[in-house]
Amino acid sequence: MPQQITFYTAKVCPAGLRVEMALRETKAEYTRYIIDLTAKPEWFSSRVNPVSGKVPAIAYGGPPTAPDDPSPESAKLIESLVLVEFVADLFPSSTIRPKDPVECAQARIFVDAVNTKFLAAYVGASQGGVWEPLWDALDALQKLLTPGKKYAISDEFTNADIAFLTLFAYMEVWLRNDLGAFPPGEGLKGAEYLFGGERFTKLLEYYERLKQRESFKQSFDANLVKEVHIQYYAAARAQFLEAAAAKP
Amino acid sequence: MPQQITFYTAKVCPAGLRVEMALRETKAEYTRYIIDLTAKPEWFSSRVNPVSGKVPAIAYGGPPTAPDDPSPESAKLIESLVLVEFVADLFPSSTIRPKDPVECAQARIFVDAVNTKFLAAYVGASQGGVWEPLWDALDALQKLLTPGKKYAISDEFTNADIAFLTLFAYMEVWLRNDLGAFPPGEGLKGAEYLFGGERFTKLLEYYERLKQRESFKQSFDANLVKEVHIQYYAAARAQFLEAAAAKP
Ligand SMILES: N[C@@H](CCC(=O)N[C@@H](CS)C(=O)NCC(=O)O)C(=O)O
Ligand SMILES: N[C@@H](CCC(=O)N[C@@H](CS)C(=O)NCC(=O)O)C(=O)O
Repeated sequence: MPQQITFYTAKVCPAGLRVEMALRETKAEYTRYIIDLTAKPEWFSSRVNPVSGKVPAIAYGGPPTAPDDPSPESAKLIESLVLVEFVADLFPSSTIRPKDPVECAQARIFVDAVNTKFLAAYVGASQGGVWEPLWDALDALQKLLTPGKKYAISDEFTNADIAFLTLFAYMEVWLRNDLGAFPPGEGLKGAEYLFGGERFTKLLEYYERLKQRESFKQSFDANLVKEVHIQYYAAARAQFLEAAAAKP
Repeated sequence: MPQQITFYTAKVCPAGLRVEMALRETKAEYTRYIIDLTAKPEWFSSRVNPVSGKVPAIAYGGPPTAPDDPSPESAKLIESLVLVEFVADLFPSSTIRPKDPVECAQARIFVDAVNTKFLAAYVGASQGGVWEPLWDALDALQKLLTPGKKYAISDEFTNADIAFLTLFAYMEVWLRNDLGAFPPGEGLKGAEYLFGGERFTKLLEYYERLKQRESFKQSFDANLVKEVHIQYYAAARAQFLEAAAAKP
């Protein structure tokens, strides 16, 4: 029997979404506590995640306490991918991590490709308007999909799917709403290239299946993600508009 | 019973060293095949690691074949950290991955800190002469060591120790031999700061214990690492010397 799980996340956080999905998929019992990242409480950075101050984090075990008064006796664990593996370790009978060692390695290779290539390219596009590496990274992921299977590795929904879906769903929001540190219109052009063409047919079919997952629907709020991205990019966008207006 | 393991690595490769140590720690039976990275065989990039062409890689299972004629039926697995986990999955009774889920998560958090912060800072120092992030990353790792334990997480030697040791041992070679894309002398100054001061006492004591590990002694050849680094940095070093000579 797992011990108590207190899950710290933010209202809008793709890394936190991974962990929330793993907790839902395994039907874990947990207490969720939302950290306001615009006014991060001191106790969180000092007593839950002194390493980086970031969410997601899990406080595991220890005596029952209020989430905002964490016990020194609980284990404090961080890093979304580590936490997804942790949840899989707590619930060994769940299928969110493949049981076969080869499939498990394939899932981790897929997760690694998401978290290195795709994540770097995601940041490069959203924060810098650099698009080619993003398409290349998505192409590489598409090639890693096991042919003929429902999900990335097999017919089971696993950690590989969680890693991909969470990032891709966030990306869909900022692309379709043209939100990022790039000239207005580039996001829409990117969305058209990604969703309107032929290059990513297999990846998009896979994504459509992922979006049907209950654990995702219950955890992901596209409108909220949009609102937070509008605020986040307001300053960058204003700069682009000013620069454009200043052009002779 | 695990199936056949063909392990592809290079003579000098910190990522490959991780996997070799995991294979030795678990007493796995395996065939090792050295890829010459200066003349990489075509079959390796096309038939073993079409994803990145890099070592280390493992071909697992399938019918017996010569390593340079890999069977399409074996599973081709890549990425050193994934391969260490894979070896742990193949040998569940070994201790190279903690059995307790909390300790296992702590080990993965440590591995993540090595592979993100420490690795990035290692590259920044060796390839760019940027030193502060390196000391900060090592400081962060030192703080993550479990107090009073022989190794990073517990008294068992685990994946956390493998990840750290492999990178740190490589670094010791290029620091002490002043080999890197930085002005001559900076490496020696770095070595003096790291090994001669008080800041890293705990980390260095831990490192001394790690270096005693048989699996490390059998796999690591400091002279070979030095030779390859001399060649690798020859061009960069010549540039610094030229620039210095050209100064009025
Ligand atoms: N590598 C971390 C990244 C976590 C992360 O970036 N968290 C963000 C929110 S999604 C955060 O806490 N930002 C606030 C801060 O950095 O203070 C993970 O995968 O868990
Ligand atoms: N992220 C990879 C890195 C592997 C890597 O960088 N391998 C190097 C040698 S240590 C390599 O194969 N370089 C040759 C090349 O890139 O073609 C891992 O951890 O396995």
